Amino acid sequence: MITSYKIINDPVHGFINIPKGIVSDIVAHPYFQRLRDIKQLGLTNLVYPGATHSRLSHALGAMHLMRDAVAVLRSKGIEITQAEEEAASAAMLLHDIGHGPFSHALENNIIVGVSHEEISLELMKKIDKDSGGALAMAVSIFEGRYQKHFLHQLVSGQLDVDRLDYLKRDSFFSGVAEGMIGLERIIKMLSVKDNRLVVELKGIYSIEKFLISRRLMYWQVYLHKTVVAAEQLLISILRRARYLAVNGHSLAGSPAICYFLVRDFTPQTFGREEVLEMFTRLDDTDVMSAIKQWQFSEDPTLSLLCRMLTERRLPKLKLLNSPIENPEYEKGCKTIRDHFKNEISEEELSYFICTGEVINRGYDSAEGEIEILSENGEVNDVYNISDMLSAKAFSQITKKYFLCTANFN
Amino acid sequence: MITSYKIINDPVHGFINIPKGIVSDIVAHPYFQRLRDIKQLGLTNLVYPGATHSRLSHALGAMHLMRDAVAVLRSKGIEITQAEEEAASAAMLLHDIGHGPFSHALENNIIVGVSHEEISLELMKKIDKDSGGALAMAVSIFEGRYQKHFLHQLVSGQLDVDRLDYLKRDSFFSGVAEGMIGLERIIKMLSVKDNRLVVELKGIYSIEKFLISRRLMYWQVYLHKTVVAAEQLLISILRRARYLAVNGHSLAGSPAICYFLVRDFTPQTFGREEVLEMFTRLDDTDVMSAIKQWQFSEDPTLSLLCRMLTERRLPKLKLLNSPIENPEYEKGCKTIRDHFKNEISEEELSYFICTGEVINRGYDSAEGEIEILSENGEVNDVYNISDMLSAKAFSQITKKYFLCTANFN
Amino acid sequence: MITSYKIINDPVHGFINIPKGIVSDIVAHPYFQRLRDIKQLGLTNLVYPGATHSRLSHALGAMHLMRDAVAVLRSKGIEITQAEEEAASAAMLLHDIGHGPFSHALENNIIVGVSHEEISLELMKKIDKDSGGALAMAVSIFEGRYQKHFLHQLVSGQLDVDRLDYLKRDSFFSGVAEGMIGLERIIKMLSVKDNRLVVELKGIYSIEKFLISRRLMYWQVYLHKTVVAAEQLLISILRRARYLAVNGHSLAGSPAICYFLVRDFTPQTFGREEVLEMFTRLDDTDVMSAIKQWQFSEDPTLSLLCRMLTERRLPKLKLLNSPIENPEYEKGCKTIRDHFKNEISEEELSYFICTGEVINRGYDSAEGEIEILSENGEVNDVYNISDMLSAKAFSQITKKYFLCTANFN
Amino acid sequence: MITSYKIINDPVHGFINIPKGIVSDIVAHPYFQRLRDIKQLGLTNLVYPGATHSRLSHALGAMHLMRDAVAVLRSKGIEITQAEEEAASAAMLLHDIGHGPFSHALENNIIVGVSHEEISLELMKKIDKDSGGALAMAVSIFEGRYQKHFLHQLVSGQLDVDRLDYLKRDSFFSGVAEGMIGLERIIKMLSVKDNRLVVELKGIYSIEKFLISRRLMYWQVYLHKTVVAAEQLLISILRRARYLAVNGHSLAGSPAICYFLVRDFTPQTFGREEVLEMFTRLDDTDVMSAIKQWQFSEDPTLSLLCRMLTERRLPKLKLLNSPIENPEYEKGCKTIRDHFKNEISEEELSYFICTGEVINRGYDSAEGEIEILSENGEVNDVYNISDMLSAKAFSQITKKYFLCTANFN
Repeated sequence: MITSYKIINDPVHGFINIPKGIVSDIVAHPYFQRLRDIKQLGLTNLVYPGATHSRLSHALGAMHLMRDAVAVLRSKGIEITQAEEEAASAAMLLHDIGHGPFSHALENNIIVGVSHEEISLELMKKIDKDSGGALAMAVSIFEGRYQKHFLHQLVSGQLDVDRLDYLKRDSFFSGVAEGMIGLERIIKMLSVKDNRLVVELKGIYSIEKFLISRRLMYWQVYLHKTVVAAEQLLISILRRARYLAVNGHSLAGSPAICYFLVRDFTPQTFGREEVLEMFTRLDDTDVMSAIKQWQFSEDPTLSLLCRMLTERRLPKLKLLNSPIENPEYEKGCKTIRDHFKNEISEEELSYFICTGEVINRGYDSAEGEIEILSENGEVNDVYNISDMLSAKAFSQITKKYFLCTANFN
Repeated sequence: MITSYKIINDPVHGFINIPKGIVSDIVAHPYFQRLRDIKQLGLTNLVYPGATHSRLSHALGAMHLMRDAVAVLRSKGIEITQAEEEAASAAMLLHDIGHGPFSHALENNIIVGVSHEEISLELMKKIDKDSGGALAMAVSIFEGRYQKHFLHQLVSGQLDVDRLDYLKRDSFFSGVAEGMIGLERIIKMLSVKDNRLVVELKGIYSIEKFLISRRLMYWQVYLHKTVVAAEQLLISILRRARYLAVNGHSLAGSPAICYFLVRDFTPQTFGREEVLEMFTRLDDTDVMSAIKQWQFSEDPTLSLLCRMLTERRLPKLKLLNSPIENPEYEKGCKTIRDHFKNEISEEELSYFICTGEVINRGYDSAEGEIEILSENGEVNDVYNISDMLSAKAFSQITKKYFLCTANFN
Repeated sequence: MITSYKIINDPVHGFINIPKGIVSDIVAHPYFQRLRDIKQLGLTNLVYPGATHSRLSHALGAMHLMRDAVAVLRSKGIEITQAEEEAASAAMLLHDIGHGPFSHALENNIIVGVSHEEISLELMKKIDKDSGGALAMAVSIFEGRYQKHFLHQLVSGQLDVDRLDYLKRDSFFSGVAEGMIGLERIIKMLSVKDNRLVVELKGIYSIEKFLISRRLMYWQVYLHKTVVAAEQLLISILRRARYLAVNGHSLAGSPAICYFLVRDFTPQTFGREEVLEMFTRLDDTDVMSAIKQWQFSEDPTLSLLCRMLTERRLPKLKLLNSPIENPEYEKGCKTIRDHFKNEISEEELSYFICTGEVINRGYDSAEGEIEILSENGEVNDVYNISDMLSAKAFSQITKKYFLCTANFN
Repeated sequence: MITSYKIINDPVHGFINIPKGIVSDIVAHPYFQRLRDIKQLGLTNLVYPGATHSRLSHALGAMHLMRDAVAVLRSKGIEITQAEEEAASAAMLLHDIGHGPFSHALENNIIVGVSHEEISLELMKKIDKDSGGALAMAVSIFEGRYQKHFLHQLVSGQLDVDRLDYLKRDSFFSGVAEGMIGLERIIKMLSVKDNRLVVELKGIYSIEKFLISRRLMYWQVYLHKTVVAAEQLLISILRRARYLAVNGHSLAGSPAICYFLVRDFTPQTFGREEVLEMFTRLDDTDVMSAIKQWQFSEDPTLSLLCRMLTERRLPKLKLLNSPIENPEYEKGCKTIRDHFKNEISEEELSYFICTGEVINRGYDSAEGEIEILSENGEVNDVYNISDMLSAKAFSQITKKYFLCTANFN
């Protein structure tokens, strides 16, 4: 299996080179091509119409940045072999391969108990097996077992090329210019110390800006009120569909979506050939096509919820710094019940109102810290060095609470 | 029905204002929201992964430019009432409402004999009727019946805001920077003379660049070899599916796509309520979801064609300046037959090899000319004024011929 | 005096409109045109070659943003009259009119004891007098006496349009992309509460990013080691020239620069007609042209210093968080003395080595705070609201200390 | 002489690497540093305030593109040695070293009979001699004597990196976005056939766009009416100053400008050490500083002309397709004479009114053609291949005629 050298046009990075070999083989693989029909930001285009970019374009971009980062590190005397570069590039291409359509909503309902990282790993292992072990090193880097730990950190860490690409890409396509980061400079400042990825001290300002931009993208895009509201609606739709399916109702939809609507999984059972096979058939079109058909379902709840999504009559979302209090929730329930003239069961009610929380993972120190390399060779966590950023900001995750109520206007 | 004033973030134009009234009502209409799931450039993202933008985002952008153009014309003393601005904006939002998914392929097979312009008009009339005539003036402008002819030219003409938006937008999302045009300057140079849209003389260089950029986008994006090849593959798929459906095979797929697979239309029959209703349920997800299921069809031809698309094993396309000669076509046929060890009928063969032509409508003078207004008030066609552009380029349409052969490697 | 309406092309903001009247009169005034030959960033182009933009282009840009801000505030119901808009625009055009060439170096040596703000005010008053009081309101806004205090804050405050323009402009021309800010969004978020300029709460993330970007521009551009070193060299040159001039040596140079080399001023004496007149003849070309001639001065110290600048053999600058200790300074002196084989006086020595400090005024709360307007109408300082930014960062000015030593290699 | 490896921030191309060796030595040379104070576009900033960029930044950018082009050609199997890359880069850095300040105006008056290319060559030879022959190959490439002719074409030809850089740079700084070209793609399409620089066929659209953009930049920027008018005014100033100087008047000004005001040259005499030495002391600051002083000259003509420039009261320029007819010229003269109440000599009159012509060298086939390489290996001039561009446009130079009259309002 040999495919040829290619150049792909990318609006974010310009020309992306696809080297012949493992990298071009992965790009041609059906598992990878499937990412073409999975939007990177799911329903976000309901708020930011430009944000229709695919997980495929993000995976290509992240692979491109990996190769840039490798070139920078090499120029600083850090040895990275050709095979290691290929493996790290492959890991980058495949790091999100386990994402299903509308991941967030799906993981809540349909594919419970198995994270997309676990699925990514399973799929990588399968491709590895099929290709006679070509991905062994890539898997090892992905899992963090490879001895050059900094390669794993580039794939998945506080300052990985995954984030560098998606922040810039999501900013570019959504039109939220404030999320734009100085990629070129951050990558130029990367180095390695004691096998760990570090940033040279003079890159500190760019890192500060990266952290602020990331936080900004969270509140302005990823956790935008209306985006979260749309996701809650989708969660309600899928939950209702599953409820009906499990209870023996026949629902329209592709075999793949119907397969997942009636089954439960554990990480163990998910790894089975059949499950993985069905999973890799699933993309955005299965979900959206089903929802369009469910608009005409006999179940009035499912039908109503689906119309609300296709016609963009999205729920109202109230965002607070403290948990929603019961009286407020009850007041919301009453409005819903009134709308249905009290002809609504508690089960049905739960699709039209709910509470929940969103978390801004702008910086989650559980993932390790961004480490800064001083000129004297010392390494420090960024929050010890920066006199601008609050240490508090690094130590805590910002959580907000919401009340989400269907919009019947 | 009153919806509120809104601002939408657009990566191409920045903030787009949605004025309350007719414009915001159209934006909220399900017919308009449906454009969210129709890609502006169909299968082009198979070549340019960034080009996933929707017809909805283009319609919003074109409406935005219409309002810019109206402001410029007003500043030059041309009277345009508030109602006329609203109507022109509405016409702009709706000008592409009649596009189906993968329009080009669909019009070839499934919806034959009815142009998307005719469908747009039907749908506009339907919304107009439903809203008690709110769109009367918009329809009149769209049809070219309104007395201020230049408003029609802004909606649909050689230099309409439709093209201004799509050239810039398609360039932006595909990453083909050479298609970028100086929108701001072109719009600033618009004027009206004797009820016709004209461009002030000092805008001539921008117009030259606009024409060159448009031509470049045609060859580099719209008529890119691999894009055309992918479209031919989709045409084959839909033709085979229709062949099977018409001959009584049962095919998976949403009710909407199945409806159109087995019916023929004329512009007259298309206007019927039921047909329009089914049409407005059709978007990209119906087509792609069906194709994914057809991969497992019992018909080996359909199944093979569908796999070729989902796995991106696209046909090879040879592009020539003269029609493909018979010997070459026959040679191609032989390769196909050899591949199938001659166990292939003529009907089946036709899905794996075909000839055709593509036309670069970079400038089609049938649509009228771009007129240049000199300082002395004279008006001339741009090709009489420009000493750079060849008059020949304006008088002829550039046509190329192709041979498209399935790729079995 | 009536000049016509004009449009100016600006690479940062696009088209800038110059309204007829006070604004266009100021733009045509010789005092304003003089800013054309004063670089916004002085010697910074020795490090960032693109940073050659003039104070004139910044003044035009800031005026443009003022008009944008006024439009936004009006759209939120804040009353701003036509006359007030003109006056605020005029104040913006003139806010930096009192800058001399290489302001920082000049204020250190040549024009001591008079700040550029004081000179700006004197020049504004002079133009006002000459034009029969046309600038009365502009002066009142500039001085902070006008009753609508928020107009003064837009001209000069923690979040004035001066900073918004210069951060973006300096970032654009230097090529330091990380300084780029989301101008459009910040301006859209401006409002007025109790006569004070405030930012709506949902603009908080943009404000955070603005503050980080500003700090970044300070360390990366305004206080860049080599830029500061070049400035110190220029200060040495001017100090030596003044020393020679005051001691009766005849120096080449334009009448304007010679005038200032031998005089001392106080704010009072500076206001005199003759002084102002000479000041308005002074721009970058006087300084650089003199330095080129002084390369051939008979004074070896002056000649050497001037060659170091024109040939870009800039001093070495060491930047520390604490004051330079005496032994280090003495060591530096010894190197210099050795270079001159001890044939150098203490006076002469002082031109080749010096210590000093730089201050990052990324946020100086002495100028008042950026105030955030919550949805409930409450107003808070940004550092009380932001959970990302450190309160410490707001309360302290970051100071660094340097040792600057001539480079004889 | 060894200087270290450096990275320079450029707003147009991002990071520019300065390799150690010949390239970094040239960058550090005083002759090269002198370009810092010569604006690439002379007086153009009077119309486009952003266009203050220096010849130094252009030279760095062109060198950067040369290295990109070399990398592309190497990747296509064309052998270019390390020494050849260095020499071509050096030639690029130095190609404009012979430009004086406000070249166009100066060559008209002050440095007559010697072209800037001849001076560049003289200066290159001098640096070569001083450095013991380090530039021998660079000189040979520059002169077109080196056997790999395509290297010369990259330095100076119809599609050299000089033009690629200046079109993009001038577009960037002036804010005339329509001049923007797709540099990355054009460079990727370069190749070499039979020792000549060619462009691959699929690059034809980018070349068309490049030619259109170049033409547009000519009319919109380089030959902008007001820019030409300002240049004519500068020519008048220098001519009057020279007239006075030659006739024994003493004029203020730096030694360098005074030196050239009273001397005549031929290419032969110009090559003399003293002349070159004085020439390399001359930059924009000499000219502008002198003009500011000449505002106070005793000669009323010189004084008036100089005030017109510093206060931006520029002449009116009328641009026609045919030569200005005598009656029109006479009418203009009468207006001038009336203004001076007929107290003006013919000599003096000539400074306030003149005729002339401008030439758009958008494509000058005297410099050789852009050659297109077809897939079958054939090479054709672009005008034979392009069906869009008019052959006429290639065969003729577009000339316009002007009447330029002082503006006394």
